[in-house]
Amino acid sequence: MRNPQLNQDGELQHLLSTEGLPARIMRDILDKAGTFLDGGEQPDIRKVPLLHGKSVFNIFFENSTRTRTTFEIAAKRLSADVVNLNIGSSSTSKGETLLDTVDNLCAMHADMFIVRHSQSGAAHLIARHVAPEIHVINAGDGRHAHPTQALLDMFTIRHYKKEFHNLRVAIVGDVLHSRVARSQIHALTTLGVPEVRVIAPKTLLPTMVENLGVHVYHDMAKGLRDVDVILMLRLQNERMQGALLPSAQEYFKHYGLTEEKLSYAKPDAIVMHPGPMNRGVEIDSAVADGPNSVILSQVTFGIAVRMAVMSTLAGGR
Amino acid sequence: MRNPQLNQDGELQHLLSTEGLPARIMRDILDKAGTFLDGGEQPDIRKVPLLHGKSVFNIFFENSTRTRTTFEIAAKRLSADVVNLNIGSSSTSKGETLLDTVDNLCAMHADMFIVRHSQSGAAHLIARHVAPEIHVINAGDGRHAHPTQALLDMFTIRHYKKEFHNLRVAIVGDVLHSRVARSQIHALTTLGVPEVRVIAPKTLLPTMVENLGVHVYHDMAKGLRDVDVILMLRLQNERMQGALLPSAQEYFKHYGLTEEKLSYAKPDAIVMHPGPMNRGVEIDSAVADGPNSVILSQVTFGIAVRMAVMSTLAGGR
Amino acid sequence: MRNPQLNQDGELQHLLSTEGLPARIMRDILDKAGTFLDGGEQPDIRKVPLLHGKSVFNIFFENSTRTRTTFEIAAKRLSADVVNLNIGSSSTSKGETLLDTVDNLCAMHADMFIVRHSQSGAAHLIARHVAPEIHVINAGDGRHAHPTQALLDMFTIRHYKKEFHNLRVAIVGDVLHSRVARSQIHALTTLGVPEVRVIAPKTLLPTMVENLGVHVYHDMAKGLRDVDVILMLRLQNERMQGALLPSAQEYFKHYGLTEEKLSYAKPDAIVMHPGPMNRGVEIDSAVADGPNSVILSQVTFGIAVRMAVMSTLAGGR
Repeated sequence: MRNPQLNQDGELQHLLSTEGLPARIMRDILDKAGTFLDGGEQPDIRKVPLLHGKSVFNIFFENSTRTRTTFEIAAKRLSADVVNLNIGSSSTSKGETLLDTVDNLCAMHADMFIVRHSQSGAAHLIARHVAPEIHVINAGDGRHAHPTQALLDMFTIRHYKKEFHNLRVAIVGDVLHSRVARSQIHALTTLGVPEVRVIAPKTLLPTMVENLGVHVYHDMAKGLRDVDVILMLRLQNERMQGALLPSAQEYFKHYGLTEEKLSYAKPDAIVMHPGPMNRGVEIDSAVADGPNSVILSQVTFGIAVRMAVMSTLAGGR
Repeated sequence: MRNPQLNQDGELQHLLSTEGLPARIMRDILDKAGTFLDGGEQPDIRKVPLLHGKSVFNIFFENSTRTRTTFEIAAKRLSADVVNLNIGSSSTSKGETLLDTVDNLCAMHADMFIVRHSQSGAAHLIARHVAPEIHVINAGDGRHAHPTQALLDMFTIRHYKKEFHNLRVAIVGDVLHSRVARSQIHALTTLGVPEVRVIAPKTLLPTMVENLGVHVYHDMAKGLRDVDVILMLRLQNERMQGALLPSAQEYFKHYGLTEEKLSYAKPDAIVMHPGPMNRGVEIDSAVADGPNSVILSQVTFGIAVRMAVMSTLAGGR
Repeated sequence: MRNPQLNQDGELQHLLSTEGLPARIMRDILDKAGTFLDGGEQPDIRKVPLLHGKSVFNIFFENSTRTRTTFEIAAKRLSADVVNLNIGSSSTSKGETLLDTVDNLCAMHADMFIVRHSQSGAAHLIARHVAPEIHVINAGDGRHAHPTQALLDMFTIRHYKKEFHNLRVAIVGDVLHSRVARSQIHALTTLGVPEVRVIAPKTLLPTMVENLGVHVYHDMAKGLRDVDVILMLRLQNERMQGALLPSAQEYFKHYGLTEEKLSYAKPDAIVMHPGPMNRGVEIDSAVADGPNSVILSQVTFGIAVRMAVMSTLAGGR
């Protein structure tokens, strides 16, 4: 079966997952993202007319102001027309099927869909359905994938560490429920990171996670030893209410990133987090706001990376 | 009394209803809509600066993501600034009257209002109230009218059938509660369609519907015989809960458009639906997705027709 | 302590309050607002590219469609990209702190925040936190300040009365709960109005209100005598439910502005109201729609004044 993300010429047709995404295409996106940033200390993003006259639809079946906003800003910086659809309150609630809704938006001459859905596979379903001139970006589907987050993380790592082939990277926290972790692991291994670690209690790890090519740790002191990059995951509050975790305090004690635990990593290790942070749960404020943190740079780079993905897709027409 | 939709020179001032709208003005709108579509198989809509610097307000007192989106896209393709107001959550809930709200928006230099309201006559009320340089488009008021839907239906019919004077057209379903049906009937008769039929159970027909110039059928086999155009109506789910209809299954059995019932019509009959469709209730999927269906073309043409209405109104200033 | 609204060169850095805002800066804003209005009877506002490529974020922690819309229109007339954030439904509800949310938006390269918050001081807090290239406009914080409303009121007074130094101005109504009244009083005294009166029942006046430099009246006949300008305040419906007021009817009888009470003022007195009006509570329709009312002009001037504030701030970079 052909990779559903690529067209017949091997170019990016949709961005659905970092799984199976060729390293060449990832690097092209990171390179293009760099062109949207100037070289200054506080990098600025210029407004460009690359998507002038194109219609980008944010179709969010799951609420996410933060992610929706980053895509909206990226699209507007590219001069696209952006239409926000909160689908919960729309036709699907009138009995229309998901694909009828998509067909209708296509008939309105959508050029690109940004899709967020609580069901894994929703973006793939839409991508398989639409005509070839329409592009789909997965902005998070269930526990499956969040590829633009992973790509902006890769951009951030390359920005601070220059190369991937000599890095030791640790992903810390609720890997089990995290689409971000899955997308990060695929991107890191594809880009040649030789050692990817996951650090989590057993209850927050998928079974057979080693099959993804990662090393498993249950202890921060060992897992963080000599790493170059620490990717913190957000701990959903609702996990506390189930049987998976005893309490936020207990979690913080063992897995919360403090200055003490950070000291196990290399002195120049960078600390990343996809946001929004739970200070005092998965990360201590001293680290979140400390010299190793590049968390706000991730946000800035996220705009540039999303601009790069969008212009790569729309430039392929 | 002068037609409230026309100014003293007989030009379109507001679009409130297809009732009383001169055939000349309808034809001008359809012709202008055609200029926004290129001639290709997959017609494209160009972005044009006709409304650059104009402010279009979508004021929706009744939620409708689909209709609001089509107007928003049309306005943005015309380069207007668009402001969406969900009035349910705004000043009217603070005790301000509808006309105070309208006065305020006028004072902000609105150029055009797109009004959706659950009360019949709301758009007329606003149109009578505003200054002459402001234009009102009725995007659906109660059971009264939905003129842009009817005009896009007329565009679709003309696109596929070229002429109106030799057609037999059937409107099928819940005519009683349908502003779409009312607007279609007025548009079809004005444009010279010699035979307009309505097909529905007695409980879903207004009394004296024959006075609108239509022929009434209660049986699909007879009503669809030799028609050129079938206009399906959406069946609101809430109708099922009252005493008007026994069940969705029963309705589908008698009035749902299946391939078998479609065979009564002319072989080249076109099937239309304003959306969103209830598959398996008023229409079978085999017909909705079949070769006679032009339902998605309606959506595409809807953008062009709304651009034509808006630029006709704003061009009159 | 340096005025937090001004930068080191004494230029406007943020607009947080009219308290402490130099008269020179107020006058510059009013002058600039005038340049966005043409000279006609029905003043038109031109679209200008002064903020092209800039990102303006409406961050509203408290719902206000009217105020949000006026800022959105002003920003779009300046050609800015506008992103609306209803923060109630966003990351802060996921446990993120207010300042983390602000940091994230800054990292997305916001140029300007328009902030509405139910807590007094929220806009100041954000202004102290952000980098120097980012500007904050207070769009209403608790009972504290609403400076753009006060500035548009000053523009309206100057438009109709030409000078401030010879005016007698009365503010009528719920001064106790009104951020608008506080901002008006500071602006009026700073601009040199020699006599500012407040007229209200004792239960709706702050203690020591005289310290703000105003004359207190509890009687409309005396308070309105020979005034040039009447600034009505909105009476929040929720005030009725407490012990502060007997009833809307009783309030209207004593403090509602009727034609009879208006006759105590100068014949050419102007009547203003920040909207939305409670007709029959604080103001009679005969006055609201009468020849002395300039209420709708306030709305029009409000767009121009907000454009002036935004372009003053963004021009300072």
